[in-house]
Amino acid sequence: MKYENFTTFDVKIENAIATVTFDFGTVNVQGQEMLADLNSLAMRLERDRETKVVIFQSANPEIWVCHYDTELLKDMSTEAVSREEAQLLDLQSVCERISRVPQATIAKLEGFARGGGHELALALDMRFAVRGKYKFMQMEVGMGILPCGGGASRMARQTGLGRALEIILSARDFSADEAEAMGTINKAFEADEIDDYVTTLANRIAKFPAESINACKQMVYESIDKPIEDALKAEAYWLYQATSKTPAVKRFAIADEQGLEHDLENQRNWNTLVMDVQDIQ
Amino acid sequence: MKYENFTTFDVKIENAIATVTFDFGTVNVQGQEMLADLNSLAMRLERDRETKVVIFQSANPEIWVCHYDTELLKDMSTEAVSREEAQLLDLQSVCERISRVPQATIAKLEGFARGGGHELALALDMRFAVRGKYKFMQMEVGMGILPCGGGASRMARQTGLGRALEIILSARDFSADEAEAMGTINKAFEADEIDDYVTTLANRIAKFPAESINACKQMVYESIDKPIEDALKAEAYWLYQATSKTPAVKRFAIADEQGLEHDLENQRNWNTLVMDVQDIQ
Amino acid sequence: MKYENFTTFDVKIENAIATVTFDFGTVNVQGQEMLADLNSLAMRLERDRETKVVIFQSANPEIWVCHYDTELLKDMSTEAVSREEAQLLDLQSVCERISRVPQATIAKLEGFARGGGHELALALDMRFAVRGKYKFMQMEVGMGILPCGGGASRMARQTGLGRALEIILSARDFSADEAEAMGTINKAFEADEIDDYVTTLANRIAKFPAESINACKQMVYESIDKPIEDALKAEAYWLYQATSKTPAVKRFAIADEQGLEHDLENQRNWNTLVMDVQDIQ
Repeated sequence: MKYENFTTFDVKIENAIATVTFDFGTVNVQGQEMLADLNSLAMRLERDRETKVVIFQSANPEIWVCHYDTELLKDMSTEAVSREEAQLLDLQSVCERISRVPQATIAKLEGFARGGGHELALALDMRFAVRGKYKFMQMEVGMGILPCGGGASRMARQTGLGRALEIILSARDFSADEAEAMGTINKAFEADEIDDYVTTLANRIAKFPAESINACKQMVYESIDKPIEDALKAEAYWLYQATSKTPAVKRFAIADEQGLEHDLENQRNWNTLVMDVQDIQ
Repeated sequence: MKYENFTTFDVKIENAIATVTFDFGTVNVQGQEMLADLNSLAMRLERDRETKVVIFQSANPEIWVCHYDTELLKDMSTEAVSREEAQLLDLQSVCERISRVPQATIAKLEGFARGGGHELALALDMRFAVRGKYKFMQMEVGMGILPCGGGASRMARQTGLGRALEIILSARDFSADEAEAMGTINKAFEADEIDDYVTTLANRIAKFPAESINACKQMVYESIDKPIEDALKAEAYWLYQATSKTPAVKRFAIADEQGLEHDLENQRNWNTLVMDVQDIQ
Repeated sequence: MKYENFTTFDVKIENAIATVTFDFGTVNVQGQEMLADLNSLAMRLERDRETKVVIFQSANPEIWVCHYDTELLKDMSTEAVSREEAQLLDLQSVCERISRVPQATIAKLEGFARGGGHELALALDMRFAVRGKYKFMQMEVGMGILPCGGGASRMARQTGLGRALEIILSARDFSADEAEAMGTINKAFEADEIDDYVTTLANRIAKFPAESINACKQMVYESIDKPIEDALKAEAYWLYQATSKTPAVKRFAIADEQGLEHDLENQRNWNTLVMDVQDIQ
């Protein structure tokens, strides 16, 4: 798969990991160019069965993605619509498409992410941020609108209701530590620590079978959109989606022969054994 | 809008912020009088497009709202009903109505809140509490019932399942720090810090357009009650509900002319710029 | 109710508390024997109206329940199925049945719990773990499958989406402190503290009416599987389920006569008063 000809970011592929580096203008504004690029990126990732992890970072030392281009907002309709007439907005569609790619996606947040920029981060699977440099804000309520790139829909799925309401109604900057405490990011790091954590995580996931990564992530998203009985059925569905395409059963047989089980020493070392099993193809 | 003639609390309106101060008897018991007052308060707030924020506090130095009046519980039915026959209880209806008012609502918790008192707090948008003075408890399991003012329905929406189950099954007092760690409150404060935080937050929200505040809060509540695809459509619906009634588009145009965008210095200062935009009417 | 003839654990009943102690082979593997035992345990608990709390612990100093027996995985189907054809797996069924017993269930985690072992813990109502000794892992993505004992369905209900995705996609060991921060456990303890906390909690719950415990827990699980309006109706349904079978109304009348209400000193002492009310039968 070729990842070329993007205007607003650069893509490097190494060891089944794609690194997307935003680098556009002074502030990485999220305008037509970036939406077109993200859409085109998603289209390629959907067809790519080699790449297993995508890291989104920024070349700008202060800003990850600043926010949606207000230029586009000026043409926004001011007509109320019925619930039936309501159609997905461009930013919602692009973020949702990125959210569902078969790869594990990681936001490496070493600068500001506000408005649509933060909504893009929320659409990724995992978020890690740097203390001091990172801030996030949903400023929409102050502009007379609401977070409409999926942010109002996704916030409480990370934080619970009360904290989502404070974030969206206060329209203020939150720090990396606040973000970690509220749950919008997985973890906050010092500036010199984030690289190690994200690289280790990405390399670990990149050793796992692509179909299993996809089954896991789609199922976790489904899990909270369904009552538990239906979620459990979906889990069984995704299991056979995975086993029909991965060497899972062969792995178990070999793992068993190697005596990975029923052995206390092996149990102590599962964290590294998981990686050894990856070498059994 | 006049906010007068309440028995169990006093209401002051200033700068688009309503402050409701509970002050009833020795312990602010939640009986017929308080339910009637809350219902009447909700009716007025629903029609009030000037007031944007409501803070609920207590004049009692030890108690916010103690709990539901057990006098009322004595007349409770002891007949099991079918799921179809089950009807909303008075306390559920009042809390749900308060929960849906168009204003941003804040519980400023400087004393105990237990049983129905805590369920009322859970029905508000945000909760802030004072270390030492604040405790909360859902004691219903010990009384042979369950939290039935919306508490059993709302707890896990704030905390996740495991912590909701511990709160409701243990029927014990939890401190402000425990509440913050579990997610029932947004944040715990020292006694002399809460005022600043709540006042700053309320004043900030009170500068934002009323229709946008309403759209944001209704959408966040809807977001977790729907699968993501339906939530995203609801987000688009609420967007046009907001733009059809707010000066949003005009703001964007002016913001753009003022060069708020594409400028690194402006990006650094978004937190205060949001407030400047409010002055563009 | 007799709790005898189990192969993989021992059950002791004392003061309405059942203590289940896993003790099977070197590593408490979760194979056919343990599933059969858990199923048989659930069947008895469902009919038992005396036992109110169940604590699950391990006799093994390093391991709670290690994981699902990979011997069983070797026979797993490699045929994809449609969503309609997907049927619950054995481990899913057993964990779901254990999850819904009428008692309050507690995982006391003093050793590793990985894969299906951790999924069993997630199916219990509350989880407490010991620093240093406890680790958990969902290693399935590394084996070519996904957590399919309810783990993929239940994780985000405890942690929010981002952290559930990291846990399930990284397939690494997480510590007790990480588990507490992410929400998979209620609280982390030092090795010499967990006993006190779990015993106090179990004894407290064991004083409450059995029907009320059941109503509370079933309702909390239902609460997040339904939109709020339906959840509130379910809450009313469970209320009358409880009052029709508990001495609730009598308790209120007596509590009222004893002046538990409207008295500041009593309000201060609710935490212990709840226990006194238990002695009013």
